[in-house]
Amino acid sequence: MPPSSKKVLNTPISGAPEPPPLTGNHSKVIRHAGDFTWEGVPVEPYKATTALWKGITRRELAGKRGESQGFHVRYFEIAPGGHSTLEQHAHEHVVIPIRGRGEAQFGCYVYRVTFGDVVYVAPNDPHQFRCPDDASEPFGFLCMVNADRDAPRAADGPGTCYICE
Amino acid sequence: MPPSSKKVLNTPISGAPEPPPLTGNHSKVIRHAGDFTWEGVPVEPYKATTALWKGITRRELAGKRGESQGFHVRYFEIAPGGHSTLEQHAHEHVVIPIRGRGEAQFGCYVYRVTFGDVVYVAPNDPHQFRCPDDASEPFGFLCMVNADRDAPRAADGPGTCYICE
Repeated sequence: MPPSSKKVLNTPISGAPEPPPLTGNHSKVIRHAGDFTWEGVPVEPYKATTALWKGITRRELAGKRGESQGFHVRYFEIAPGGHSTLEQHAHEHVVIPIRGRGEAQFGCYVYRVTFGDVVYVAPNDPHQFRCPDDASEPFGFLCMVNADRDAPRAADGPGTCYICE
Repeated sequence: MPPSSKKVLNTPISGAPEPPPLTGNHSKVIRHAGDFTWEGVPVEPYKATTALWKGITRRELAGKRGESQGFHVRYFEIAPGGHSTLEQHAHEHVVIPIRGRGEAQFGCYVYRVTFGDVVYVAPNDPHQFRCPDDASEPFGFLCMVNADRDAPRAADGPGTCYICE
């Protein structure tokens, strides 16, 4: 049987203790505010090493506030007409869209992707994520990467991939 | 500028190559079928080491088909009235609900969680996920863990946590 619930912290309870702070290596919940923003999580610039990107923001959801797991979870959002850098690196990506629709390119493959699709980008495959010009809302996705990883480098074309080689 | 799209693989295209298979360490897309199932991804038993759970299924989304990243991404779904094992282990969990509503307990904290919330379970905190008896749909969540991790062991109570210690 499940243990009884001692304290339900979704809403303030008179006399209940404060929930854990967002920073530190203790269990915690980072609240989704309902509009693809999270309480206490700032929007950050995309932070690519090149200027070859447009209209994209980043939110660090897990891994940068004292958590000890070996991977980071981020939320990226691309405005209509925007795109990430066409880049490559040795570390892998696992991307799961949760808002809107977009395009994922790796090598010569282009996929239109939407909620729940799982995109795996293998080591060193050039890749890019885009939101169409005529999209009615931003394209937002979770992106998981190893905590220890190499820096991306810009790619000068779609490169080779599973079917190009 | 983004590179041009050579092949759009969301729908079959006459003359287009087959998309990459689901198994292997190459870039790929695992398609969400629109109802919290994924093409080619079987539903599996929960696989807990104890019988202290109820009404929960597992789908392996990334990490078990040749991908090389240092973490696994799974989708768990709990039927109304069901729950995971109350357990603890040294490895961390990052859980993000994407379907329905549920409860997440770690130590003496209980949170009601829903779409987009981020639950971080710190090392060795007893924890459990539950779907209420009166829920109108299953409680489904992404769960990310290190690829190399210790086995869970059943906990005999909510244990201690950030506020209990």
